[in-house]
Amino acid sequence: MNEFELIARYFTKPAKGAILGVGDDCALFSSKKTIAASTDMLVEGVHFFPGEDPFLLGKKSLSVNLSDMAAMGAEPRWALLALSLPAAEESWLEGYSKGFMMQAENYAVDLIGGDTTRGPLVICVQIMGKIDAGLALRRDAARIGDEIWVSGNLGDAALGLYHLQGEIRLDGADLESCLKALRDPVPRVELGLALSGISRCAIDISDGFCADLSHILERSEVSAIVDYSSLPVSKTMEKYVNEPVGEKAILSGGDDYELCFTASEEKYSEIIELGNQLGIRLSRVGRITEGSGLHVLDEKGREKGTGEKGYAHFR
Amino acid sequence: MNEFELIARYFTKPAKGAILGVGDDCALFSSKKTIAASTDMLVEGVHFFPGEDPFLLGKKSLSVNLSDMAAMGAEPRWALLALSLPAAEESWLEGYSKGFMMQAENYAVDLIGGDTTRGPLVICVQIMGKIDAGLALRRDAARIGDEIWVSGNLGDAALGLYHLQGEIRLDGADLESCLKALRDPVPRVELGLALSGISRCAIDISDGFCADLSHILERSEVSAIVDYSSLPVSKTMEKYVNEPVGEKAILSGGDDYELCFTASEEKYSEIIELGNQLGIRLSRVGRITEGSGLHVLDEKGREKGTGEKGYAHFR
Repeated sequence: MNEFELIARYFTKPAKGAILGVGDDCALFSSKKTIAASTDMLVEGVHFFPGEDPFLLGKKSLSVNLSDMAAMGAEPRWALLALSLPAAEESWLEGYSKGFMMQAENYAVDLIGGDTTRGPLVICVQIMGKIDAGLALRRDAARIGDEIWVSGNLGDAALGLYHLQGEIRLDGADLESCLKALRDPVPRVELGLALSGISRCAIDISDGFCADLSHILERSEVSAIVDYSSLPVSKTMEKYVNEPVGEKAILSGGDDYELCFTASEEKYSEIIELGNQLGIRLSRVGRITEGSGLHVLDEKGREKGTGEKGYAHFR
Repeated sequence: MNEFELIARYFTKPAKGAILGVGDDCALFSSKKTIAASTDMLVEGVHFFPGEDPFLLGKKSLSVNLSDMAAMGAEPRWALLALSLPAAEESWLEGYSKGFMMQAENYAVDLIGGDTTRGPLVICVQIMGKIDAGLALRRDAARIGDEIWVSGNLGDAALGLYHLQGEIRLDGADLESCLKALRDPVPRVELGLALSGISRCAIDISDGFCADLSHILERSEVSAIVDYSSLPVSKTMEKYVNEPVGEKAILSGGDDYELCFTASEEKYSEIIELGNQLGIRLSRVGRITEGSGLHVLDEKGREKGTGEKGYAHFR
């Protein structure tokens, strides 16, 4: 099986929403709305363990890109997939392509092109979607007085990772839910779209809550006060919330793929109602203030060290 | 230097032609015309030698993507860059970013986003541009009776590669020009745009002339006869043209990044004139016929084995 057979067998489906899909020098599509575009690269041994289940890896490699669309409030539509593979192993390709294609169908995304090469296992997805530019959820749009919100729960994926790395030991339902959070994150695409007109500013939590909120603060040139006890956690995390490993997972664990967004306080009840409608936990965790830097306070109002500020590839 | 400092220092420039550039979850841009999108992944040790000059690598990593735009007849406009790097080495990043950014400026392309991660040296560029969908140079648009054309010369990059691999020994001006062809290919963007209305069908020669022309034949469900002696070669290649190594370089050497296109025969003089205007050698090398498969004939009309049909990542 050469790379052309590989592409034909595993990665070629009719592109319903494109003018030209897989198989030419370029794919073609058009949009009256503004285009949002993003890319994420996943490297074996860095972003996932060698031997990771290919189906879940296929699904996750699209999910993390869908999460960038969600964080912008964009509607995902088209994807390109560049794959570097040590070998054209059929069982791996079967699993990977099933996971990727299933998630693409779940979110009405067309795989319209890509590249396949021999090399170390590296996955690079580019995603493109539609947006009203004026309604985009930008990192530089937080305003003093805005309240800070977080979707879902924080830190479960990191707990799953710490378990696999031998730092903690989870079992039963705790282990299952944390490994699911790590391996099969849910991109908040529906929420991102629904925030149009409610929020102007969001980011997805991929590097860790403190690191990602700090990106908003830097780009918006503001400061924030966050109440540690208001950060949303799962039943599993409740057992770790006052231990260093729990704090680390909540504040700087990566791979949450939840949205952190800001909104003026008069949007409070609208946001609560939206969370109920979508069945997504939405928690108010702090406030945007004048100044600079992120200040996480404990229940006595003392500043917590935010410690390691998230995953850094180079130090 | 963490990845955010790295991006800020080397890869952040104002995106003149985009609504939002580097620094948010997605980049934003809009186009009334159809969007053409493509991606190419370059892996160290597969697509280039370890220790390759970073400036030329930066330039080439964009050039090979520009070449896909050229092959579609699209106007390149926006790029995303995903980089996996073993380390954040300043001298490498300085050189790479200079080469990439210079080529971006040469072709009026905005770098609008990307991703940076630790890992093996892998470069993945996604390029997007504008096109009139009805005028796109598609692989499936060759028609029986069309003449087949090739820009520039074939095989010099492969000769450069064979030299580096020790298969042949070049020196002086021959070595210089073949290494330049290999390391610093010129994407035929201007030619691709100018072919609008003259040709309906093109591909860029990246895997090798026979392999790439075969993609056209398969997608268009036609056959082709090519006259080996009419294939355009450089003065250097003339010395090898009747040797197996020369035939291999011409017919199945990759990395030419010339355009192979088809046009009806009444376009002959228009194409010759276009070549003169652009200062690009344009050679008529064969004809599209009924049937299937590619037939390369020698000066006595005997069929030549096309041998290895181009670079294959998996066999």
